[in-house]
Amino acid sequence: MQTFKTWAKTPPKGWNSWDCYGASVTEDEVRQNAEYMSQHLKDYGYEYVVVDIQWYEPTANSSHYHAYADLEMDEYSRLMPAVNRFPSAKDKQGFKPLGDYIHSLGLKFGIHYMRGIPRQAVYANTAIKGTDKKARDIAKQNSICPWNTDMYGVDTNKPGAKEYYRSLIDQFGEWGVDFLKVDDIADSKLYGGHLDEIAMLREVIDESGYNIVLSLSPGPASLEHGAFLQKHANMWRLTDDYWDNWHQLYDMFARCEKWAPFVQEGTWPDCDMLPLGHIGIRSVDGGGSDRYTRFTKAEQRTMMTLWSLFRSPLFFGGELTDNDEWTLDLLRNEGLREMHANGLHPTQLSRKEDIVIWKTVTETNEWVAVFNLNDEAAEIELDLSHYFDKDGDACTELFTGEPFTGTTTRIEAHDVKVFKL
Amino acid sequence: MQTFKTWAKTPPKGWNSWDCYGASVTEDEVRQNAEYMSQHLKDYGYEYVVVDIQWYEPTANSSHYHAYADLEMDEYSRLMPAVNRFPSAKDKQGFKPLGDYIHSLGLKFGIHYMRGIPRQAVYANTAIKGTDKKARDIAKQNSICPWNTDMYGVDTNKPGAKEYYRSLIDQFGEWGVDFLKVDDIADSKLYGGHLDEIAMLREVIDESGYNIVLSLSPGPASLEHGAFLQKHANMWRLTDDYWDNWHQLYDMFARCEKWAPFVQEGTWPDCDMLPLGHIGIRSVDGGGSDRYTRFTKAEQRTMMTLWSLFRSPLFFGGELTDNDEWTLDLLRNEGLREMHANGLHPTQLSRKEDIVIWKTVTETNEWVAVFNLNDEAAEIELDLSHYFDKDGDACTELFTGEPFTGTTTRIEAHDVKVFKL
Amino acid sequence: MQTFKTWAKTPPKGWNSWDCYGASVTEDEVRQNAEYMSQHLKDYGYEYVVVDIQWYEPTANSSHYHAYADLEMDEYSRLMPAVNRFPSAKDKQGFKPLGDYIHSLGLKFGIHYMRGIPRQAVYANTAIKGTDKKARDIAKQNSICPWNTDMYGVDTNKPGAKEYYRSLIDQFGEWGVDFLKVDDIADSKLYGGHLDEIAMLREVIDESGYNIVLSLSPGPASLEHGAFLQKHANMWRLTDDYWDNWHQLYDMFARCEKWAPFVQEGTWPDCDMLPLGHIGIRSVDGGGSDRYTRFTKAEQRTMMTLWSLFRSPLFFGGELTDNDEWTLDLLRNEGLREMHANGLHPTQLSRKEDIVIWKTVTETNEWVAVFNLNDEAAEIELDLSHYFDKDGDACTELFTGEPFTGTTTRIEAHDVKVFKL
Amino acid sequence: MQTFKTWAKTPPKGWNSWDCYGASVTEDEVRQNAEYMSQHLKDYGYEYVVVDIQWYEPTANSSHYHAYADLEMDEYSRLMPAVNRFPSAKDKQGFKPLGDYIHSLGLKFGIHYMRGIPRQAVYANTAIKGTDKKARDIAKQNSICPWNTDMYGVDTNKPGAKEYYRSLIDQFGEWGVDFLKVDDIADSKLYGGHLDEIAMLREVIDESGYNIVLSLSPGPASLEHGAFLQKHANMWRLTDDYWDNWHQLYDMFARCEKWAPFVQEGTWPDCDMLPLGHIGIRSVDGGGSDRYTRFTKAEQRTMMTLWSLFRSPLFFGGELTDNDEWTLDLLRNEGLREMHANGLHPTQLSRKEDIVIWKTVTETNEWVAVFNLNDEAAEIELDLSHYFDKDGDACTELFTGEPFTGTTTRIEAHDVKVFKL
Repeated sequence: MQTFKTWAKTPPKGWNSWDCYGASVTEDEVRQNAEYMSQHLKDYGYEYVVVDIQWYEPTANSSHYHAYADLEMDEYSRLMPAVNRFPSAKDKQGFKPLGDYIHSLGLKFGIHYMRGIPRQAVYANTAIKGTDKKARDIAKQNSICPWNTDMYGVDTNKPGAKEYYRSLIDQFGEWGVDFLKVDDIADSKLYGGHLDEIAMLREVIDESGYNIVLSLSPGPASLEHGAFLQKHANMWRLTDDYWDNWHQLYDMFARCEKWAPFVQEGTWPDCDMLPLGHIGIRSVDGGGSDRYTRFTKAEQRTMMTLWSLFRSPLFFGGELTDNDEWTLDLLRNEGLREMHANGLHPTQLSRKEDIVIWKTVTETNEWVAVFNLNDEAAEIELDLSHYFDKDGDACTELFTGEPFTGTTTRIEAHDVKVFKL
Repeated sequence: MQTFKTWAKTPPKGWNSWDCYGASVTEDEVRQNAEYMSQHLKDYGYEYVVVDIQWYEPTANSSHYHAYADLEMDEYSRLMPAVNRFPSAKDKQGFKPLGDYIHSLGLKFGIHYMRGIPRQAVYANTAIKGTDKKARDIAKQNSICPWNTDMYGVDTNKPGAKEYYRSLIDQFGEWGVDFLKVDDIADSKLYGGHLDEIAMLREVIDESGYNIVLSLSPGPASLEHGAFLQKHANMWRLTDDYWDNWHQLYDMFARCEKWAPFVQEGTWPDCDMLPLGHIGIRSVDGGGSDRYTRFTKAEQRTMMTLWSLFRSPLFFGGELTDNDEWTLDLLRNEGLREMHANGLHPTQLSRKEDIVIWKTVTETNEWVAVFNLNDEAAEIELDLSHYFDKDGDACTELFTGEPFTGTTTRIEAHDVKVFKL
Repeated sequence: MQTFKTWAKTPPKGWNSWDCYGASVTEDEVRQNAEYMSQHLKDYGYEYVVVDIQWYEPTANSSHYHAYADLEMDEYSRLMPAVNRFPSAKDKQGFKPLGDYIHSLGLKFGIHYMRGIPRQAVYANTAIKGTDKKARDIAKQNSICPWNTDMYGVDTNKPGAKEYYRSLIDQFGEWGVDFLKVDDIADSKLYGGHLDEIAMLREVIDESGYNIVLSLSPGPASLEHGAFLQKHANMWRLTDDYWDNWHQLYDMFARCEKWAPFVQEGTWPDCDMLPLGHIGIRSVDGGGSDRYTRFTKAEQRTMMTLWSLFRSPLFFGGELTDNDEWTLDLLRNEGLREMHANGLHPTQLSRKEDIVIWKTVTETNEWVAVFNLNDEAAEIELDLSHYFDKDGDACTELFTGEPFTGTTTRIEAHDVKVFKL
Repeated sequence: MQTFKTWAKTPPKGWNSWDCYGASVTEDEVRQNAEYMSQHLKDYGYEYVVVDIQWYEPTANSSHYHAYADLEMDEYSRLMPAVNRFPSAKDKQGFKPLGDYIHSLGLKFGIHYMRGIPRQAVYANTAIKGTDKKARDIAKQNSICPWNTDMYGVDTNKPGAKEYYRSLIDQFGEWGVDFLKVDDIADSKLYGGHLDEIAMLREVIDESGYNIVLSLSPGPASLEHGAFLQKHANMWRLTDDYWDNWHQLYDMFARCEKWAPFVQEGTWPDCDMLPLGHIGIRSVDGGGSDRYTRFTKAEQRTMMTLWSLFRSPLFFGGELTDNDEWTLDLLRNEGLREMHANGLHPTQLSRKEDIVIWKTVTETNEWVAVFNLNDEAAEIELDLSHYFDKDGDACTELFTGEPFTGTTTRIEAHDVKVFKL
């Protein structure tokens, strides 16, 4: 097994600022979420606190980007935290103080970065650390992100390209970054995947000595690249941005079915953040506004069960400090955590008329989840002996804790029952 | 794990009649290959003797099909062995006598079948066993094979469809069939995959009580269907027909790289038969004629190493009784057999300038194969410590048996070295 | 100009049996429509009476085909009219008597034929006129129609293929066929276009001495084949079957825009039959049943204006004898007929917010049609001087006959106004 | 007919600087070519002198662009001629003096422009003439050219966009520009066509009062856009850049066949410049270097015949002053000029085994061109009476002037014979 896979032996869990704050999260908001996590979720396996896109953009105020905005940048063409949003970054300290603080809480620190080199660096033709090449020498002519104007891609064949990416990783390592979400790279509407830049990131991370988990966005990643992604990243996205719309949750089932063979230790197909709790505070994507998640409780159970059983990374997207008890309990659910941490070979057993059955097995238990994706409740004939390897009637339903012995069960619209043996 | 996966815990090995006899193999030829296998290869894990396509076509004399030919058929729309080619099938005994003979040698018996129901059955509207529906009732209107005129597809939604497929499997089971290669089903140039017919085959085999290994042809199967195929078949093809052309062997590397995550116990991505030894005797496909394989010895090593390390099924395509010592030794090679039977997580580690490095691990050993796909010999810098998990210099090369300690090695064009630790 | 183009100097007009009777029209029904046409429409340019698909299928009773049904066929593998449906075809007279009758009314006779040779001819391996080759010798292995089981394609490279197609055309010529609608040939969901069979049809018709207008179905024909079609056929379809659904009419505008450059003398992009009047009598396609057209009067005006201005062939699909006055008047509309017969360079001038403006010019007039494709009435600012080449305010609206002088006009939902200068 | 079509009633002819000088042509070079044209070609219909791409790039020195180079620009975000290359442009005179000079020779003046607004204008957020909007307000976020870094696209929905394009056309008009070649617009590898920017260009040109012929590059334009292009531009490219390679010339035949229906007065499918004579002087594209055209004389005849018969625009790409007699004669060929200026309905009559026959008709003559695209000479059976409408044996071959009466003719490899009746 490649070493980097040992850095994420189970699928990562944590919090990400995108669903609630878009591109505009502030240091205070990051800290308050870290503190909440430390107190309420750390013991349940959540550990990463991730600052999402455009922490280097002083005027960012939602999830809409300001095209061609001036970005905070150091003399080596590297983006730096906007001090007006991250005061501890003053005096060129970057994210080191914030990283230290998060570590002091017993947590891990993650940040986002866009593939490539800032366009403004190319325009000003600024220096690159560790080489006499400059920004224009390594920019990949006309390799751009379709939805954001911050960067040009990097031409990995050019002298200086590797020095540039190495200089990024070195700085992130010095800051204490444990998790790196790289964007505009897992799939691209314009160019397909950016395999060469992914391979270079793998190389410089492995050579850096820093154990930085590598996460690739956005999807849909292509199955054609599945084996490649497994060898180069810890996680990669299966879809474009996921929000609290039933049709997106519905659609995820077919994707998980196809990607299940790739769920292997250290590399995790990623269903994207959990748009639960209080979201949309300053994020204006996804068709909503400042809100509590539009998912019903049934849908939240369905999502959490699919993500957990399938072993997707789990990053909470809401403002944690606004969580209610019900949401917190869902995150802490013991059965979900066991499937997520220890499940073997998650697989969809069948799908008929939108009754979908998945199964996974842990060392001590077998788990069968029966999802009703229909818009109406369904009375389902269910002979669990078909699905369980072991005999035994001592089967309980996860969310109710009730034993199940019958041959039929009723599942509400968009809801799930999880049978544990 | 689904039960059917236990029927092929390691990738199947055996002989298939296509590469040497096309659609025209005779009973005598099958028997002589079975006898050879029993004497020379059985102890090395080869066990399946497979009669390929059109054993029901009395006039078949090569690999070219006779369009719209009259086929041997029973009263239930099921194709029967052509007695002029398979004399033991007389008196409606079908393949039972041949199956019995192969079993008596300690081997297993396999046959080929085309997806669907004979067009001549549809024209004559003949009966289907176990139902009062007739051939026209279940034929899928205008679902055809693009390269053979024998069959119409079956519409699995029609009453009688399942009875038809069940009647086939029942008969195969009675005949002693252990291995079924279904054709025009893994991929179709006209319609994409035929997932519904695959699912129905899985169902009727599982219900039949016969442990018949299911093999799907031809490819290229789609990665999009990979998870589905894993749940329904024991093996499926990665390419269209494979022959002794270097460019096809070259091309297989990229396919194996992508399919490696799907190599899992009981379900095996299939690189197709081994066109080795004496082939093309009556098969006229693949651009050759009656010949010894056009692959050089280097290319044969390369192919056998890739197939074995990747854990593809291994079906010898040549007339076994004409094997020379060198070929026989290659099939019996102990190291290849160990990787093939016991390898874990075969994976391509790197590919640069057509030097391709694969690795697999068995309980006792690590194996690193270095392929030179270039048309010229290459002097390769090689630090095996990058690839081996364990320390130790006690590394030997598989084909020469020589120890390797250096930092460079020369590999001839199209050749391979396999380092075993 | 190729000679065959002179056979259709203006876009053909007539009646076709499909929309009302599907595959099941009878001789009586054909005759009564021919008689009506002769009395009510002949003077207005309508002249073709076309018997659509499966006149050779004795049991045809709707627009649903009976898969693998036994077809009426002569000893030369040519389909013959089913005598139970076309009594005058008795004694192997084929369509000669019916053709004679239609001609006696001063009209022209058209029939449908499927690309290829009957599958039952291939199964029985019957003779082909003018050659010793037989049906199996020329059938194109596995070239089929996706939606009908009558035929195999013909392999134009095979000896005997041209004799077969020639024998068809000779027979049609003897029967007095003036118009031939060939099916499964303009586009194919399975194989793309069938250009070689189209070219062979052109060749045998030109060599036959019979002036048979050639019409190709179904679409959507590809623009990539547009130039080819212009050189080989008199008309070809732009869509799959067209019915009385607004969304299909709406969609036709974009197709007409793209195909307008191909509207040239003798070769006519074809918007398909007019599903007007009493349709669906035994045809069960198009989502309707026995009915008067579901198009509103506004939509009928819109359709007739687009078809006429664009110079599509005009084939009425309803049972003519059930026409009401309004429908008959629409068919006879003088302005529409002038644009259709004499329009030069029909072109879409603009499309904004689904207000679509087309223009054509005849020797004496300019015509500007303003379509409102929105679901609500629209008040439109309209400066006609932008569109008319000539000065002059003497502009009248076609359907109302009223003069127009203003700068705005109201057009109801799905309706059209045609301004004539 | 739209007015703009009257500005190019016959396909434009002239000279373009790209094939000889890439992006680096100088004023002296333009003037010497204009002078040559005035003396040697003006009387033969050649009239446009076109300065191709990057006349605003001071350091341009070949056909390779300098990524992110600083461009000459005025205060209104409009690119200006680099004075070091075009001295007469000093004192902000732009191309006015050069235009005047070309007009003084009795010729017309053309320039190239890239779709969009300079990236450096967006970075500096400079003004736009006629509006208070600025460059960032109208730049289309992430609409770029795939092969050149000069511009961002313009978002035509944004206030200020039309003012920007109008300000360009006004300036071009003031400079005396008669012909505008807009680039990165007819087709785009990244985004498909840029129909909205094309429509806006049409609008501002029509409103400007300047009769500027509009030419769109590069191709391959899509047939799907053919009708649209006809209504908005005078010419548009059928391919990506065309060079003196036989395979590109060979390939053009299939394209011309498909585009022939679009050859209509005022709008001309464009086969691209003629890479003849002395080319590659500073242009390094197309696989050659400073050279005389690599086309053989036979190939040059073939190309000139196809371009002329098909009525492609004809822009000579070589340094005119280095022309030899043979080349000059080819450009002046009377028959070619007649087909080009007056041909009606050019069409490919047949193509068999790469013998391709095209025909066109002028008021007084019929012309049949027989091309031999094979790599060997061909003896061709030829019954010209099949192709000529009129009777008469008085047929002569264009290039030799010899009468032709036989039934066979020999055509050398890659050569053509043109028969004139």
